[in-house]
Amino acid sequence: MDWKAEITAAHERVAAYVVRTPVMEADGFGLGFPVEIKLEQVQHAGSFKPRGAFNTVLQADIPEGGLVAVSGGNHGAAVAYVGAQLGHKAQVFVPDFASPAKLDVIRRLGGSVQMVAGELENVFAAEAAYKAETGAFDIHPYDAPGTVGGQGTVFKEWEDQGLSADTVLIAVGGGGLIAGAMGWFAGARRVVAVEPELCATLNTALKEGPQAVTRGQGVAASALGAQTLGRIAYDMARESGLQSVTVPDAAITAAQLALWQERRLLVEPGGATALAALMCGAYRPAPGERVAVLLCGANVAPDPFG
Amino acid sequence: MDWKAEITAAHERVAAYVVRTPVMEADGFGLGFPVEIKLEQVQHAGSFKPRGAFNTVLQADIPEGGLVAVSGGNHGAAVAYVGAQLGHKAQVFVPDFASPAKLDVIRRLGGSVQMVAGELENVFAAEAAYKAETGAFDIHPYDAPGTVGGQGTVFKEWEDQGLSADTVLIAVGGGGLIAGAMGWFAGARRVVAVEPELCATLNTALKEGPQAVTRGQGVAASALGAQTLGRIAYDMARESGLQSVTVPDAAITAAQLALWQERRLLVEPGGATALAALMCGAYRPAPGERVAVLLCGANVAPDPFG
Repeated sequence: MDWKAEITAAHERVAAYVVRTPVMEADGFGLGFPVEIKLEQVQHAGSFKPRGAFNTVLQADIPEGGLVAVSGGNHGAAVAYVGAQLGHKAQVFVPDFASPAKLDVIRRLGGSVQMVAGELENVFAAEAAYKAETGAFDIHPYDAPGTVGGQGTVFKEWEDQGLSADTVLIAVGGGGLIAGAMGWFAGARRVVAVEPELCATLNTALKEGPQAVTRGQGVAASALGAQTLGRIAYDMARESGLQSVTVPDAAITAAQLALWQERRLLVEPGGATALAALMCGAYRPAPGERVAVLLCGANVAPDPFG
Repeated sequence: MDWKAEITAAHERVAAYVVRTPVMEADGFGLGFPVEIKLEQVQHAGSFKPRGAFNTVLQADIPEGGLVAVSGGNHGAAVAYVGAQLGHKAQVFVPDFASPAKLDVIRRLGGSVQMVAGELENVFAAEAAYKAETGAFDIHPYDAPGTVGGQGTVFKEWEDQGLSADTVLIAVGGGGLIAGAMGWFAGARRVVAVEPELCATLNTALKEGPQAVTRGQGVAASALGAQTLGRIAYDMARESGLQSVTVPDAAITAAQLALWQERRLLVEPGGATALAALMCGAYRPAPGERVAVLLCGANVAPDPFG
């Protein structure tokens, strides 16, 4: 697939619907070097996810049954938002570890939420039954070309805004966002995948193969707790020799706190995970290497206004 | 005073010390028209205040006694931050309505806090006694050329970043920030002063004269609760025919909630006050008039990590 062309087309498709999120250079975080950051958490629905959902829906014929998704929260919020903007109803099936703050977001944005207890397979089964019954249109949270192409617009946009970093650190759940980064940068900048030790889906897949199943746990599970890595991301990671690092939950919480205390940016744990890799030394840039970090989501729990 | 020159010089002086805060265009907030916003709340110490404090201290010979300030919180946090960066100790006298979250910020940034009960005059008296005893250097929170010149750098920076608005809405406490705006824009863009009805210091001064005393109350008092308007701001407001509007506390809280729910920007009430004027209709732009809103502070209470 020509991802550059795919992402350029996605950008033209979604630009009128998504927030061109701000960028800045930040010192601090105890690092001793500056970091370029992009505040993608101010995106509609509180994460980058509407980019992929808009890109998918704007290319499709959506049936009467509307949209349906399985999500730990952020993808569901995005699908609800996209549905409301484009006039489709949206049904989101969530696992029982989804945070209440995220369910509130989905509902506030106009989505219907159904929580399914037990294994994640149960959630997918419930969604499949709903699809069979209603004909609703399914948007994959990470492993579909439309999703990856849409998420990739983050990085095209960042370059349009003057990104200068040699290396871009990105948190990984199922791999849709980082696949978009690999697709857009295509080797021109180093991409580093950052995952919590407790939901290291990509790291595990690179060691054990694409079928490896990870049981996501810990502070960032509701955002990064995908059970298997997307095949698109897996193949791109293999081909490009993607660098993968993991961080402990304590480092994620420390990064989340530092973003608030030093920069008054309140993000969810998944949104602080990429920065955590710099703060805890899981990724150490070489002297003079310029680094960038994507803040990817802010659907925190507890909601400060909850 | 040639404020353009003053602010340009201030910009050169402080640029290496302050955050070039990000800007964005935002739809939503129930408005039906886009708003340019500048995220000045991600500035060091959580508000625009370090700009004026750096500009002042970098031009002065600071004595052994260090820095001293009277502040409801944000100016004190700025003075503590500037002292820590430039190697001066900082003593902050605060009224007893200052929010605990702000006192925590001052202390975390290395400042010493002394709370003084009763009238604001008592706080100023305590500061005067400390100054007499220690020779400490006083930084006025709003009514000094160095402070106004420093705060004005927000607006020079915003224009450098491509500000296109016809009209810029700014929250007002003692008037240092809006004086900087009037000084920089010099009539080239419309400046609108926004104040809570419960601490409408500028609005009252424009009606009753510069000596009018306002007892600041309500949700934004710790940021905007100056008792008298600065003389610099008063004279500039008179001369330029500054437009002044007030908003109820409920509108401020609604704007604060909308900034969080729609844009994942967590600001303090004072930081949401300018947006409140658009949301509640206290300021209604003409058809086609482009508007901008400065988000000026985020030292919220309760601290979500407190």
